[in-house]
Amino acid sequence: MALIVQKYGGSSVANAESIKRVAKRIVDTRRAGHDVVVAVSAMGDTTDELLDLANEVAPIPAPRELDMLLSSGERISMALLAMAIHSMGFEARSFTGSQAGMITDSQHGAARIVDVTPVRLREALDEGAIVIVAGFQGFNRDTRDITTLGRGGSDTTAVALAAALDADVCEIYSDVDGIFTADPRVIPRAQKLDHISSEEMLELAANGAKVLYIRAVEYARRHGVLIHARSTFSSSEGTYVLGEGMKNPREAEGADMEEPIVAGVATDFSQAKITVAGVPDVPGKAAEIFKIVAKSGANVDMIVQNVSATGRTDISFTVPKADAAGALKALAGEQTEVGFQNLVHDDQIGKLSVVGAGMRTHSGVSAVLFEALSAGGINIEMISTSEIRISVVLRGDDLAEAARTVHTAYGLDGESDATIHAGTGR
Amino acid sequence: MALIVQKYGGSSVANAESIKRVAKRIVDTRRAGHDVVVAVSAMGDTTDELLDLANEVAPIPAPRELDMLLSSGERISMALLAMAIHSMGFEARSFTGSQAGMITDSQHGAARIVDVTPVRLREALDEGAIVIVAGFQGFNRDTRDITTLGRGGSDTTAVALAAALDADVCEIYSDVDGIFTADPRVIPRAQKLDHISSEEMLELAANGAKVLYIRAVEYARRHGVLIHARSTFSSSEGTYVLGEGMKNPREAEGADMEEPIVAGVATDFSQAKITVAGVPDVPGKAAEIFKIVAKSGANVDMIVQNVSATGRTDISFTVPKADAAGALKALAGEQTEVGFQNLVHDDQIGKLSVVGAGMRTHSGVSAVLFEALSAGGINIEMISTSEIRISVVLRGDDLAEAARTVHTAYGLDGESDATIHAGTGR
Repeated sequence: MALIVQKYGGSSVANAESIKRVAKRIVDTRRAGHDVVVAVSAMGDTTDELLDLANEVAPIPAPRELDMLLSSGERISMALLAMAIHSMGFEARSFTGSQAGMITDSQHGAARIVDVTPVRLREALDEGAIVIVAGFQGFNRDTRDITTLGRGGSDTTAVALAAALDADVCEIYSDVDGIFTADPRVIPRAQKLDHISSEEMLELAANGAKVLYIRAVEYARRHGVLIHARSTFSSSEGTYVLGEGMKNPREAEGADMEEPIVAGVATDFSQAKITVAGVPDVPGKAAEIFKIVAKSGANVDMIVQNVSATGRTDISFTVPKADAAGALKALAGEQTEVGFQNLVHDDQIGKLSVVGAGMRTHSGVSAVLFEALSAGGINIEMISTSEIRISVVLRGDDLAEAARTVHTAYGLDGESDATIHAGTGR
Repeated sequence: MALIVQKYGGSSVANAESIKRVAKRIVDTRRAGHDVVVAVSAMGDTTDELLDLANEVAPIPAPRELDMLLSSGERISMALLAMAIHSMGFEARSFTGSQAGMITDSQHGAARIVDVTPVRLREALDEGAIVIVAGFQGFNRDTRDITTLGRGGSDTTAVALAAALDADVCEIYSDVDGIFTADPRVIPRAQKLDHISSEEMLELAANGAKVLYIRAVEYARRHGVLIHARSTFSSSEGTYVLGEGMKNPREAEGADMEEPIVAGVATDFSQAKITVAGVPDVPGKAAEIFKIVAKSGANVDMIVQNVSATGRTDISFTVPKADAAGALKALAGEQTEVGFQNLVHDDQIGKLSVVGAGMRTHSGVSAVLFEALSAGGINIEMISTSEIRISVVLRGDDLAEAARTVHTAYGLDGESDATIHAGTGR
């Protein structure tokens, strides 16, 4: 008899039918003799619809009120889910973020969890009830106001509950089967991973993989929560995300083989490249430039500075496409002060990342990447590396082809194509 | 500078446009220098839509979860309303039932208010904010669960807040201009009343008038809250509902004339008549019959028992049409025990009520009614009276005509027809 925390996203509870399906799944887990705590997102597009309403009544909605508004989405889905379970003959109780003791700071729209005091949840569990908790929301103890956790908040809610209740596992349900060696929509031969280390998962997520939110994985890593990423639409097991010194639950079954050197290949089409051309080659210019970019709120990923002979140099960096316009505007405004010659904006790039903890102990991992790309006649524009990751920026048109080549080169291809479910993976 | 509580119903906040209109109205009140506390209902048909969802996932939704679900409707409207006010440059804060200190018993779906502790509302008012409160909902202190107040709950919320905050007036906004001497859809010459006593209002509401909910009027009467029933769609004043010894705020202006003997004429098409025919004329039979009816959950209104010569008697009574089937079934099941001969069901009746506190001090009020009806050749089937009311049951087809005749006979007709707004008055 274990304590299992399950998280179901909006696409898993989009309508009455899917709510009933999820309810059945929860009841089955209970029938198997486990205590169940569920974190649920708002139904389908509810959150977006509420946002639209907010923008109709107010150009810039007051943050406190926006959180009050958005938090109602999960209240609806959790109450419906609890009813559905009830009508299957099982005791279920729903709790809002504040009732669940999800205490956050006062940063409306992007609140951080500061404490979890699940007193009422424990009571309900002790009384044999299935517990349903509103994802994505909490409350601030000082202002006594309702807050929301921002993007991926429900994943974070689930992991935080699992940590606070010392759950055996935190199952994150979505419409994909688990973590793959690559995005199956880009690389059909991608394989589902039996397990992955949380550090590898973080690198993959940070570089384009969409199955889990970085924040939830970080929280799980910090608090030693075992994550099991799996699909709402199949009963087959998904992928375990293992933190420091955590053992794979399936090792006993011998499902675990020798650790692969490379865990996966991530592809990212979401970045744009900005080149600041003809920068005076004097100390402090880079600092100037990136202070300006940072002030524009743009999130810089990769940076390269070309060596210069002319006394002038080019500095290129990548930012999310959405941030590019702001960064360009900010830089243009300071052109004379900085003294650069011109700005080049390129949103036709793609980023390919190879992630593997094995890179620490195995040499020649990068060589395989570069050989594969040159053999494919694919030109590399930028390179950056971390302890367990190599990323390269290519032409966007080359990205898919390059990813397939590299995936094969690292021996990650499966026997057959992966099955892809409808939906986005969230 | 007064403290004004305002209540806006679902039809007043049905969409973004109307929310902005209501926000403007609230801001105008604030601009006039008043403190404002607003109780708001869920947008348009939200509550019904949520109920439909509930019935899709569960045949009999768990009451606790149903309240959790329904309470989200007001959270949406109140947050949007607060945002709209904010974007007009005024500080506004929304509060859920529990945040507002609306403490109820644990009767989910029909909770009664046991205490109101508006600590946070006072804080917000002291800080100069406009306060928006979710109507219709509260919470139970023992179970710490969210409850809803049932039909007309938002009116009750508004009146309860007005009482707890010692407000100068509780303005109940709907899509009609106030309380009329009769339903303008039945009697075009009905006039809007400048004011009405709460006891008269209760009799009118109990006998078919739909503008205010009995429960809210009772609460106001008990706690000395002045109600001002008025329209969201016009700025003209509506009708003041005056409790014991309360003075009409407009008397100063001389708007108040001599009290009329009859305040209004109420029409009610919602009742059905059941006749239990051939009841043995022995003591205790009536008691037997009405115990059976009560157990069926039917709410008996009028009762007449014909004198009998034959040793058998007929007992007729009226119940809401919705309750009739249950009452008939229950009675049929006990036919032999009670020993009556047969049951007659008649849902083609209409009830006409004349209400006026003046009946206490003036004689001949009922004579006017009976003369008017006989002059109109209208047959009376049942009669019942209270201290300030005379009600008669007629054929449903005669009701409108009879009401017009009586309205004229009591001198209640206006110079011209009343203007009727779209909507139901709720």
